[in-house]
Amino acid sequence: MANEGTELAKEPRTERGRKTLRKLLDAATHEFADHGFHDASVSGITRRAGVALGSFYTYFDSKDAIFRALVSDMSEGVGRAARMAIAPSMSALEVERAALRAFLEFAAEHKEIYRIIDEAEFVDPESYRAHYETIGARIEERLRKGGENGEFAAGLGSPEAWAVMGINVFLGLRYVIWAREGDPALEEIAGRANDLLASGIAAPVV
Amino acid sequence: MANEGTELAKEPRTERGRKTLRKLLDAATHEFADHGFHDASVSGITRRAGVALGSFYTYFDSKDAIFRALVSDMSEGVGRAARMAIAPSMSALEVERAALRAFLEFAAEHKEIYRIIDEAEFVDPESYRAHYETIGARIEERLRKGGENGEFAAGLGSPEAWAVMGINVFLGLRYVIWAREGDPALEEIAGRANDLLASGIAAPVV
Repeated sequence: MANEGTELAKEPRTERGRKTLRKLLDAATHEFADHGFHDASVSGITRRAGVALGSFYTYFDSKDAIFRALVSDMSEGVGRAARMAIAPSMSALEVERAALRAFLEFAAEHKEIYRIIDEAEFVDPESYRAHYETIGARIEERLRKGGENGEFAAGLGSPEAWAVMGINVFLGLRYVIWAREGDPALEEIAGRANDLLASGIAAPVV
Repeated sequence: MANEGTELAKEPRTERGRKTLRKLLDAATHEFADHGFHDASVSGITRRAGVALGSFYTYFDSKDAIFRALVSDMSEGVGRAARMAIAPSMSALEVERAALRAFLEFAAEHKEIYRIIDEAEFVDPESYRAHYETIGARIEERLRKGGENGEFAAGLGSPEAWAVMGINVFLGLRYVIWAREGDPALEEIAGRANDLLASGIAAPVV
């Protein structure tokens, strides 16, 4: 939480600097989402942010640098949304449901996230990979803890964590980005994904 | 199988024409994977295919047209790989395992598929969405059939189908595209994903 996605920016020293940096990242989100990386410009970002061009270079060396910082900011945003939705009293399964629900709501509020993360595959492949490896590691840690305290099966690891991440990303793609009239509410989507994690999709043994 | 991804190309009338079309699609796979859509060229594709420039225009109007045909060809390739791996004697769960295994092997043989499908999000968003909607509908149909014959839970639908697709795509991303030394074999990955579908990840009730 200390530096909210700004680990790749020069650290602001003042509260005012912190606000400027936040404005630049938010403006960059819209500039990159509207134009794509190649047609986006630093001057477009500063204009949207209402910040002088010189201030941009106080924090970032280039358009590439703010794009990288933005991907990292979004990875942290996803993590923060999940952490805020989780309470210590929840069971391991409830934690997964709350984390997915929080992710779906985060995506609904920041629909640009899919386009920007997906464009990172081409603009900055290392950031793209780091984004998923960071989130995958976070999920794996939750599964491992659930296994240790006997709520989850023993021996869960990376394959299950990437499977859970794939479920979450694709449900966001379908029910947030490509939402259709008549779709179930995000609450129900998170519940059905949680049923899958709880007991699979095979018919109950009678 | 009739027109293997060529529904968007002008239909060849001869066996020789069919082979030329196949050569062009295969060459386009490598041209787009190596250079990305924007830097790829029709002359680069025909050079790789060993086909005259005029022949290209017999089948496609433009670089955009062959890109669209290629995305559709890949959706069909994924479907064909799954169909060929499935036998009528298999249980509904075995079908899901075989389909994932076949997808992972298809991706290992055509690693370009991730880059090309992902670039379609920017180059041709309709093809991108059609790719996942086609595969999602195919999975949903299998889940529905499994529900009808009592092997799967009743009432499975689109959310479960997109969850299964997300599992498959993300396991391919991690264990094929970003494979690491010491990773479990694809056979084991498919088995662990299948265990998740069979019974979830919660600890067995004792």
